[in-house]
Amino acid sequence: MITASICTIGDEILIGQIVDTNSSDISRELNRIGVKVVRMLSIGDDHREIVDNLNACLATSDVVLVTGGLGPTKDDITKEALRELSGSAGWRKSEEQYEVIDRILTARGIKMLDTNQAQALVPDKCEVIVNKLGTAPCMAFHGLGPDGSASLYSMPGVPFETRGLLGDVMDDIRAHYKLEKISHRTIVTFGIPESELAKQIESWEDSLPANMHLAYLPNPTIGVRLRLSAFGVETDFAQQVEELRGLLGDAIYGEGEDTLPVAIGRMLRERGAKMAAAESCTGGRISELMTAVAGCSDYYNGSVTSYANSVKMGTLGVREETLAQHGAVSEETVREMAAGVLRKLDTDYSVATSGIAGPGGATPGKPVGMAWLAAAHRNADGEISVTTKCVKFSSSRAVNIERFASNALNLLRLKILAGD
Amino acid sequence: MITASICTIGDEILIGQIVDTNSSDISRELNRIGVKVVRMLSIGDDHREIVDNLNACLATSDVVLVTGGLGPTKDDITKEALRELSGSAGWRKSEEQYEVIDRILTARGIKMLDTNQAQALVPDKCEVIVNKLGTAPCMAFHGLGPDGSASLYSMPGVPFETRGLLGDVMDDIRAHYKLEKISHRTIVTFGIPESELAKQIESWEDSLPANMHLAYLPNPTIGVRLRLSAFGVETDFAQQVEELRGLLGDAIYGEGEDTLPVAIGRMLRERGAKMAAAESCTGGRISELMTAVAGCSDYYNGSVTSYANSVKMGTLGVREETLAQHGAVSEETVREMAAGVLRKLDTDYSVATSGIAGPGGATPGKPVGMAWLAAAHRNADGEISVTTKCVKFSSSRAVNIERFASNALNLLRLKILAGD
Repeated sequence: MITASICTIGDEILIGQIVDTNSSDISRELNRIGVKVVRMLSIGDDHREIVDNLNACLATSDVVLVTGGLGPTKDDITKEALRELSGSAGWRKSEEQYEVIDRILTARGIKMLDTNQAQALVPDKCEVIVNKLGTAPCMAFHGLGPDGSASLYSMPGVPFETRGLLGDVMDDIRAHYKLEKISHRTIVTFGIPESELAKQIESWEDSLPANMHLAYLPNPTIGVRLRLSAFGVETDFAQQVEELRGLLGDAIYGEGEDTLPVAIGRMLRERGAKMAAAESCTGGRISELMTAVAGCSDYYNGSVTSYANSVKMGTLGVREETLAQHGAVSEETVREMAAGVLRKLDTDYSVATSGIAGPGGATPGKPVGMAWLAAAHRNADGEISVTTKCVKFSSSRAVNIERFASNALNLLRLKILAGD
Repeated sequence: MITASICTIGDEILIGQIVDTNSSDISRELNRIGVKVVRMLSIGDDHREIVDNLNACLATSDVVLVTGGLGPTKDDITKEALRELSGSAGWRKSEEQYEVIDRILTARGIKMLDTNQAQALVPDKCEVIVNKLGTAPCMAFHGLGPDGSASLYSMPGVPFETRGLLGDVMDDIRAHYKLEKISHRTIVTFGIPESELAKQIESWEDSLPANMHLAYLPNPTIGVRLRLSAFGVETDFAQQVEELRGLLGDAIYGEGEDTLPVAIGRMLRERGAKMAAAESCTGGRISELMTAVAGCSDYYNGSVTSYANSVKMGTLGVREETLAQHGAVSEETVREMAAGVLRKLDTDYSVATSGIAGPGGATPGKPVGMAWLAAAHRNADGEISVTTKCVKFSSSRAVNIERFASNALNLLRLKILAGD
């Protein structure tokens, strides 16, 4: 199997100023085309460190992907290291990248300086993959390593520029190495914990053909993604997915990059329906997740974050007796919140939360990590039905909020699915 | 200067399933006590890879910090590698960690299994730093490396467990190495872009004593943090900070780990005042940021996300003529939103946003990335004053939303400061 190392260059990573997200973006793409990542490395802006570490990577993996260390004020060290490492005698100008630099600077109304011009200069042994989103080009070097079979790709460190280049870089890797054929399909589930899920589909997993592999990718916001991979063949996994649907039913809500807000948006659009949210313990997170999807104004009317009881009563119409008798964190209150926001914001569906995110706020019988969730539906006759659920988690404030929000959205998804 | 390498163990990082945040948490702490991080490395769950890479790190740095590769189902490979590497003959039981394991399992109502018992076993040459937040102990090894002067610390990979251990680990490093004295102080600013800030304080920066260093740490949500470090002395930077306040005035809003929601909360508490938010383009992000601070219910009543115009009118009281004449994204609308939510949620202050996060939704004169922001205050006489601001960004939907939210919070901060 073709192997890869990923190397990030930059003092700002070593001092902990920024978290390196490029490496995981790159490794996911490599994984997708069937290249195995054996090492990730971050080093500082130092010529010797760069040359020595990249040479060590080229000696032990087929492909080395480098990010960072490029840019108008940083080019010098990294590019000189790459020139030395590739045995390039000198520099040449990349006309294509120069055009992009010119275009970007003109659009920003900035005059081209020597440092900008220099960005189009590359070691003469490199092939340029044009970076259309920024001024620093991607440089591809082939024929490196002890036996001359290794390649190195150097990309700028700005995450969206790196992501923008990965398609072309993967194509170039495919063109230079014989990769095993590989197919993927990802099924997205919510509501069954990873360990229980593994038990439920154990015999199905055991019966997968030898060339198929299943990976569990759990995420508190999305749920558990099940990624099927097949090596050596092209397949759409139709039979396997059908069997999986039989085993997991409504726990499956989408494929690929789907999230709960995307799936809910699709269902609401299909039904010509609208939704709203009433948030207490989630404090706006549900609304933020729903509105992160572009075009959500087609089905999302808005939300009320009712942190104070006065807002629960005044804006959502929760009754004073309900709060006095059962408290803000109760099935009765969350039920009235869901019905109230549905009426107030005039929607067909709604979701509501009230719980204790922590660290303070616990009362006897209502520990930190507990929340009441509700989903409501108003049918064609104007009747409102509400479904509720109590959940208990034991994480930090931020993680509790995340789990309350995703579980509430899943309750709403199941409510829309049931259509009751 | 004492140097360090950070090594993360785990296949889940190499396939891009999770982003490694431990390395930046660790490097920030090392930086704080004056240890220079020279390398970060991620490798897979493989005995040979672990031994070889850790030995290479021990040969080139004084301290090696390892995370991951520990846990009930993962212990085998990493611990055996550490036993071999440390020259330990066998295993011993850590009674202190065993007690923690017993306590955690009892609290969760889980019976202790062999795999749990085994977690208390450590190579006999290690010193245990007890992990109170999880079952896997932190193992400290001293006297390693070619000249017997290097140390290695192995911690579990769960981020909050690692963070919980870092204080004790830094104390242990301090006890074993003579570190140069180092002082830090961080001033937090918002509203002046990094490059402009650098120009404004250029002569102040140039006049800093030779042993003082300034670092710019920009963040779209927080602003630009200015971190002062002094080597070889203990100082509170009183004079430098006073001069900085003279230069930057109200752009400075806090110190250390302060964020805009923390600073706003502090100001509201001091004044016994309450606030609310009316969000359109930020979709709930402002509310989420405000409620991420524990105890925010003392001053945060809640918010209305008014995505639909019907909600702007029905819940916030924006006039139909205003929307018809000026549109939802206008100074007039955001002004009525801010005043409306202040009245509706009965608060002293409020903040409001209406803009175009993109990618769609642009109209002539109102491009993607443009937003109107407002902050309102109701004085003791019941009079409401509103301050507005128009901002323009050109990023992705997510980044635009983030910048709209933080700029709106800063507008509110300045409004509270002005007290008008």
